[in-house]
This record gives sequence, C-alpha cells and structure tokens, in this order.
Amino acid sequence: MTLALADARALDAADPLRDFRGRFELPDGVIYLDGNSLGALPKATRARLKAAVDVEWGEGLIRSWNTHDWIGAPARVGDMIAGLIGARPGEVVACDSTSVNLFKLIAAALKARPGRRTILTEPGNFPTDLYVAQGAAELIGGVEIRLAAAEEIAASIDDGVALVMLTHVHYKTGAKHDMAAITRRAHEAGALVLWDLSHSAGALEVDLNDAGADLAVGCGYKYLNGGPGAPAFLFVAERHQAHLSSPLTGWMGHAAPFDFVDDYSAAGGVGRFLCGTPSVLAMLALEVGVGLTAEAGMAALAEKSRRLCSVFIDAVEAACAGMDLTLVTSRDPVVRGSQVSFRHPQAYPIMQALIERGVIGDFRAPDILRFGFTPLYVRFEDAWRAAQALREVIETNAWREPRFQARSRVT
Amino acid sequence: MTLALADARALDAADPLRDFRGRFELPDGVIYLDGNSLGALPKATRARLKAAVDVEWGEGLIRSWNTHDWIGAPARVGDMIAGLIGARPGEVVACDSTSVNLFKLIAAALKARPGRRTILTEPGNFPTDLYVAQGAAELIGGVEIRLAAAEEIAASIDDGVALVMLTHVHYKTGAKHDMAAITRRAHEAGALVLWDLSHSAGALEVDLNDAGADLAVGCGYKYLNGGPGAPAFLFVAERHQAHLSSPLTGWMGHAAPFDFVDDYSAAGGVGRFLCGTPSVLAMLALEVGVGLTAEAGMAALAEKSRRLCSVFIDAVEAACAGMDLTLVTSRDPVVRGSQVSFRHPQAYPIMQALIERGVIGDFRAPDILRFGFTPLYVRFEDAWRAAQALREVIETNAWREPRFQARSRVT
Repeated sequence: MTLALADARALDAADPLRDFRGRFELPDGVIYLDGNSLGALPKATRARLKAAVDVEWGEGLIRSWNTHDWIGAPARVGDMIAGLIGARPGEVVACDSTSVNLFKLIAAALKARPGRRTILTEPGNFPTDLYVAQGAAELIGGVEIRLAAAEEIAASIDDGVALVMLTHVHYKTGAKHDMAAITRRAHEAGALVLWDLSHSAGALEVDLNDAGADLAVGCGYKYLNGGPGAPAFLFVAERHQAHLSSPLTGWMGHAAPFDFVDDYSAAGGVGRFLCGTPSVLAMLALEVGVGLTAEAGMAALAEKSRRLCSVFIDAVEAACAGMDLTLVTSRDPVVRGSQVSFRHPQAYPIMQALIERGVIGDFRAPDILRFGFTPLYVRFEDAWRAAQALREVIETNAWREPRFQARSRVT
Repeated sequence: MTLALADARALDAADPLRDFRGRFELPDGVIYLDGNSLGALPKATRARLKAAVDVEWGEGLIRSWNTHDWIGAPARVGDMIAGLIGARPGEVVACDSTSVNLFKLIAAALKARPGRRTILTEPGNFPTDLYVAQGAAELIGGVEIRLAAAEEIAASIDDGVALVMLTHVHYKTGAKHDMAAITRRAHEAGALVLWDLSHSAGALEVDLNDAGADLAVGCGYKYLNGGPGAPAFLFVAERHQAHLSSPLTGWMGHAAPFDFVDDYSAAGGVGRFLCGTPSVLAMLALEVGVGLTAEAGMAALAEKSRRLCSVFIDAVEAACAGMDLTLVTSRDPVVRGSQVSFRHPQAYPIMQALIERGVIGDFRAPDILRFGFTPLYVRFEDAWRAAQALREVIETNAWREPRFQARSRVT
C-alpha cells in the first residue's frame, strides 16, 4: 500500500500511546530513530535528578542510603524491569554495565556446567558479547567459543555446550531469535541459555519465564530511556539462584555487606550478582525511564512497535523504489525487533546526510542504514517523514557532499 | 595543648583553602565528618548535571558522544585524577566501580606473574578488596590469598607472591602504609603491587610513580566528591600497559570499538582496561569534584588534612578525658590518612546520638567511631565543635536512649 501523510497522521490520532510523546524532551526539527542506541530524555527525569542531587545527595548526604533507600535501588529498579520482560520480582537487579553483567553470568554458567567447555553464539553478535565471552574464556581456560549462524544455532547445541549466548534481537539486522524454541533445545542438551535483551527490553514482548530462560542481561539506555551509559540489568531465574554464583564478588553482593567481615558469603537471591557500589544518580534516572515504560504497558508498546516498523518499510519501499536499497529486516513482525535496517552501498554518507536533515538513525558497518522505533515517542508521521527524507537524500545526491564522507569516532 | 573555639576560628581565618567550603552545598546545622564515606555536593555539580541532562542528553541525544566528547570522558577524567595521585596522563581511566576495577587488575597481575600463585594482603582490609580477591582466586583456580598483619607485610613477600594488594589508608583505623617501602620490597621479590587509594585520593599526597607503583584503584565518591556511587578509577603504570590485559574485555576497551568486528583486540594504553559503556551523567558529576580538588591543589589539601586531624585529636583528648575513648589512629600525620578513629565500648549508640545532633561520622564494627576530614570543606571550627558534641553525648548519657541502639542497614 502507499501511505500518505494524512494516513500516518490518522494512525497517530488513533494511537492509544500518543500522549507519551509529550512526556519526552525531543528537539524541534528532529525525527529521532536512534532510541535503540540512546533513548530520549523523559521530562520527569529532569526533576527526579534535581531532587536526587539537591535533596538526597546535597542535604541527606550519607544518610540517604537509608532515608531515601538508595541501598534498595538495584533491587527496586530490577523488579520494575522484571515486569517488562516476563520475570518475577526477585529475579532481576539493575547494576553495572551490560558487559560486566555478561561476564558475571558467563562465568557463573561455566561453573554450573562442569565438564562442558563450549560457549555457543553467533558470528556478528553484538561485539561486546563476543569480546566478553573471549575474555572470560581466556581467563578460565580450556573454554571454546563456537560460532554458528543464526539458523544453525539450534542444531549446533551438543552435549559439550555449557552455555548458549545470544542477543535476542540482532543489533544490526533486527532479526529476532525464537527464544522459547532455542531455550527448549538447549535444555534438552543440558545447556544453559543467556539472552542479551539490549535490543528487546522496552520495545518487544519478552517472556523469560514462559520461555524457560535461565539467564539474561540487558541495557538501560536504549528503549528503557535511562540516560547515556545507564546501569544495565541482569536476570537469573529463581531456580538457579541458589547454585549459581558471581565471580565478581564485590561487597554489594555479600550477605551482610555492612558487617565488614573478611570472608565473602554470597547474598541469597539475585542480589548476589551485585558487585560494587552502584551509581545512584544513574540508577534513579533509569528508574524514571523504566517507570514510563511500565506505565505504557508492554503489550501496547509492542503492538505499536510492530506497526511503526511496518509503516516505515511500506513508506520506504513506496518512496525509494529503484534506489538500490535492500531491506535487511524481515517483513514479518514475529521475527524482528523494533528496528528496520536497509542495506545500501553508500549507507555511511546517506546516514550522515539524513542526520544533518534531522532524521537521526544509525550507520552500521559496512553498509547498513539502521532505523530504530521507540514506541513511546516515535509517531507514525515520523516514520513517514523519515522515508521521504531518505528519498530526497538519495534522489538529490545530497550524500555526495564531501563532508558526509568523513568518519566520526562514534556512529 | 587545649584549643579554644577562638583558636579554631583563627585557624580557619588563616586557612588558604577557606573559600572552597562555600563551593559546596552543606546543610545548616550539620558538621559533616563523613566525606570519606560519601563526599559532599559541589555547587557546580548542579549546573553541570543540568546541562548534561537538558542540553547534552535532551537535545544532543546520540550525537553528544562526539559533540560533547562523552566518549573521551573516561580518559579525560582519568588524566585529571592522575594529576592528584602522582601519575602521568595516560596512566589512569575513570570507569566502573572500585570492586570491578580490583577484579580487572588482580586478574591481570596473576596472568603477568605465571608460576606465582599468591595474593598477599592484610586481614581487615576493606571488605570488597578481600571479597573480590577471593572471587578472582576461585575463578582462576590454584590461587592462595595470604593474610599478614600490616607490620608483617614486607617480611611476608616471598617469591611465590604474584601480587601485594593493600589499601593505602585503612578504612577503619586510618593507618597508612609506606607505599614506597612496600613497593620496593615487593619488586625485590618479583611481585607486583596494587594500591587501593579509596581513602587517600583527594586527601593525601600520593605519588604513585615516585613510589614505583604498578597498579592502583580508587573511589570517586569519597574525597573526590563525585556523588553517590560515582565511577571509580584505575591506574596502570605506563611500563606495564603493553603486557597487562584486562579479563573484562568489553567493547570500550577494544582498539576500534566502532568497527564492530567479532574478535577482541585490546586498545593501546590504559584504555584497554575500560569495559562497558560508562555512565555519562555520573562521570560528568565526578569531573566537577575532581576539578575542584585539582584547583585547590594536593599539597595544600594534604597540609590542611594533617592539621585538621591533629586539632581534632587534641580537642577530643582535652574535652573527653576519662571517657573511655581510645585513640586508634596515629598521632603522627606521616602514618595516618585524613581520618581519626576512636574506640569506645558504646561506639554504635554514641555515633547515632552524634548524628542526631548533626555531627555526622561513621560507626565501624565492632567499636570504632570514625571521623573523616575532607580538607576542601571541613573547618577547624567543625573539628573543635565535633569534639565538644562527643563530650556532651557521653557526659549526658544521651547515647543511652533506646532509639540509638537499633542498627540500620547502612552505617
């Protein structure tokens, strides 16, 4: 179908989530399709951080660990996130970075499956997942990292595999794994599964417990809108908590951190996967973003995400026919995340030209134009306008300008 | 000598750092002697965070990684901290928590000293140091953690020791190790030394390179006033950077993180010890605190710290003679940190009663009253008044009130 601007506006008018956009700070003239790299600023975060700084830190000082329950924040925010990903209270904590949390759970899984020495993952997984697995494997010793293409993962799980580690939604292509099927297959073979939800949490319906998932990590600064470098989270299924342990045995994971005894004794529950003192300011900012997501509700968010992506695909294909764009992401919402990626030989300068026009997406090497759709604040009109901007940039050869060729450090 | 209030005020009037106090938010009626647990709020942090949130995150969005140099923040703040601890630019990065950084450096040191399997440290070291060493030892396997009392550390370094790991200033007693002497002795035996500067950085003169130190970590939220749970820092001497590697191989430590290749390749320099995406808001708050410290200058800060502690000891001994207080910290400024600890059988309720009166220090189990002196904002008058408050609480038996007996979760 060919969608007109009026059609997109009609979809926005009928959108049950339409009022959430007004609760974010979004600069004029910007269509922000990069919430899967850094989510936008919730208006409420400004006041929350001001209170955290002025009142809690400035006036409360050290007392705020108790009086403002800073000490409870990792579990409290974790419980809120649990409700977004099909986990139970007490199965998630917010802490550290995704990378650090990956290390904790990879090491814990290898220890829990003695005799099995293989981590199975896919090539082209988000780099930090592969890098952290390599570091853990080298430190522990005798561990093999086996790479299998997405469609061959299930068949590659043999009885040497300790852990299957996958990103639920691929950061580049937007392809989504069948969490339940892979988890089932892994369990049949006696392996554990670790899901990286960085490109899922807050945008898709995820049901970790329904899928029987063992372990998961995820990012706080993408669809959860927790702010740049927000604390990440980790999930350990309740049935595993008593026998899995973190190798990063910092004092916040101790059973009695303020007893100051010499010997480590792991806390009960998922709290044993905490490590050092969390950044309180960052945690409280994350809490606002997670709270907005919970308020909107994952079912409504996921439904809007699916429709936004479909509208964008249709609009690009209508506007940009014959322009050498190849759709990378599936047309089927069931097997994709909340993003749409197109391949184009000139993807890098095209994205730079789009960004200059205020349409902010991402380039991913070597030739991917990536557009993320955060259902809390992206409108159908934005999706439609982004497609028109893409057409203009290609049609007018705007991307050929030399300033769009220079690579920046962070893309 | 017996100091009168007028004498303390005269010291404040002559204090070259007296104007720095006005650059902190300090609540009325509070004498804050707990900056070694959580530093106070610099006034400039409020505006810095507001700009970081409103302008950099809210308007700049993902672009701010480049336009506001978020990506350079760990190295930039690290270089500022380097100047406070006798390190060179390029030897320090700000990142993660002290606990996570300890893990990185412990594992790196063990790998760099194959054949040596002992970590030497002292009993009663700050708990997270011991806990993290225990976790690393268990994960790596075949590693012994040997405990030796402070005065026996040097004699206990044999050729099985891979790493001597010590907190420069003891969190409880305030005792300070001779960094240069222990480092020299360790090097003679072929061991590396890891110094935890959590209770030193920002309050004492530390000269890592003069002492020949190999490795160090430290805390951003104590004397550096970076905010609750601020990013920590780590130091790797330049001569070790090429051959030491982090086991936490997250993408921020990669030589080319935005190339998104599958294989890890460590960055050159200390940047290889970065792991995941840092909390930008927390990092920018830390930068303000570190900047104030640098502006005041470590020599002046250390001199004031020594005098504040001496004044407090004298004032307490004059005011509280015969009250069962035992000085734990040395009278000699050369061998102590920026804190004064007294032992008292009723230390817990006494500290609670002091806190209710607005004199905020710390209790440390089982019987320690700990008073920290941050030279940036604590006045000589504060030290004098705190001593009088201590006398009142003991003299009037105020501490006997039942509400002061109940233990809170965080002290």
